[in-house]
Amino acid sequence: MGYKPLEERICRDGKIGDGDVLKVDGFLNHQMDVAFLSELGQEFYRRYQDAGVNRILTIEASGIGIASLTALHFGCPMVFAKKTKTNNIYADVYTSNVFSYTHGKSYDIVVSKEFLHAGDRVLVIDDFLAKGSALRALLQLIASAGATAVGAGIVIEKAFQPGGAELRAAGLRIESLARVQRMSRETGIQFC
Amino acid sequence: MGYKPLEERICRDGKIGDGDVLKVDGFLNHQMDVAFLSELGQEFYRRYQDAGVNRILTIEASGIGIASLTALHFGCPMVFAKKTKTNNIYADVYTSNVFSYTHGKSYDIVVSKEFLHAGDRVLVIDDFLAKGSALRALLQLIASAGATAVGAGIVIEKAFQPGGAELRAAGLRIESLARVQRMSRETGIQFC
Repeated sequence: MGYKPLEERICRDGKIGDGDVLKVDGFLNHQMDVAFLSELGQEFYRRYQDAGVNRILTIEASGIGIASLTALHFGCPMVFAKKTKTNNIYADVYTSNVFSYTHGKSYDIVVSKEFLHAGDRVLVIDDFLAKGSALRALLQLIASAGATAVGAGIVIEKAFQPGGAELRAAGLRIESLARVQRMSRETGIQFC
Repeated sequence: MGYKPLEERICRDGKIGDGDVLKVDGFLNHQMDVAFLSELGQEFYRRYQDAGVNRILTIEASGIGIASLTALHFGCPMVFAKKTKTNNIYADVYTSNVFSYTHGKSYDIVVSKEFLHAGDRVLVIDDFLAKGSALRALLQLIASAGATAVGAGIVIEKAFQPGGAELRAAGLRIESLARVQRMSRETGIQFC
């Protein structure tokens, strides 16, 4: 189910660019309307409050704001996976690989073993879900730690891309606050 | 003036590494104790509440969490400058250059002209201040926009490095919640 105030905000402030780009950098990605993002965090909390979440996981950089403001509602710590250029496997981190379709190359992400543990019940928070490569990499970090992914909370899902459908089919719970079915400069944005 | 609960937290959880590294990734930089960071944000608000701040500015990635949680107390938007590898000057962004002593190279940071305006009263928030290169670059973005930097709010200042003293001498108000005077594995951490 979409979260109406977000859908309205996307229609008002979002800009459709070339190549399926939806620019929402007026409130989410570059300038952050933190009061509004905190409301979105509260909505994630409403949906996942019975899931026993004890840790929020995201990926730098643009996930950090919404994940911080969400973690405040859950009363739990937030951990962000760091991007790294080195392909070394360190003993003290979990590592996984993300393929960026935007930049046409892959990079590793790491999270310290100190901050992700067996038995943790982890909620993944991110700003966007499209093909799902970042989310898959985060799930792999969680699995490496022997922790449980209770689900994902996504601000904007591009439902016309395959990531969400594939990961739901694999059994992951995904709560997206806005699911864009289609968009174009001519006809605007339609939500699922 | 140091903020006692932060100084105590640094003494408890901080780890001193080689080359003047102070690792606080258990609550500030990798895993974030968002409830505690929100308290720090409240302390920044206490110090700057009469400064007419209408915008918080930080730099990705590790500044985003504390800046978001601080902006919530100020009731204003937060903008983060983005790191970029390209040296192009775009018409729609303000650009400045940061020299990273950690990595021995420089990079550009940009902020969209849409999100920083003449007349803005900007508070810069960042996790660390040492030599001051990131902070100087942020001040340059603010000056480019014709906005006013009302000051900086820093979580941890390495007061044995010259950045803070130089920028204060140049007239900038800097409120650091913890100012490390010296640190070593043998004698621990002393605050100013």
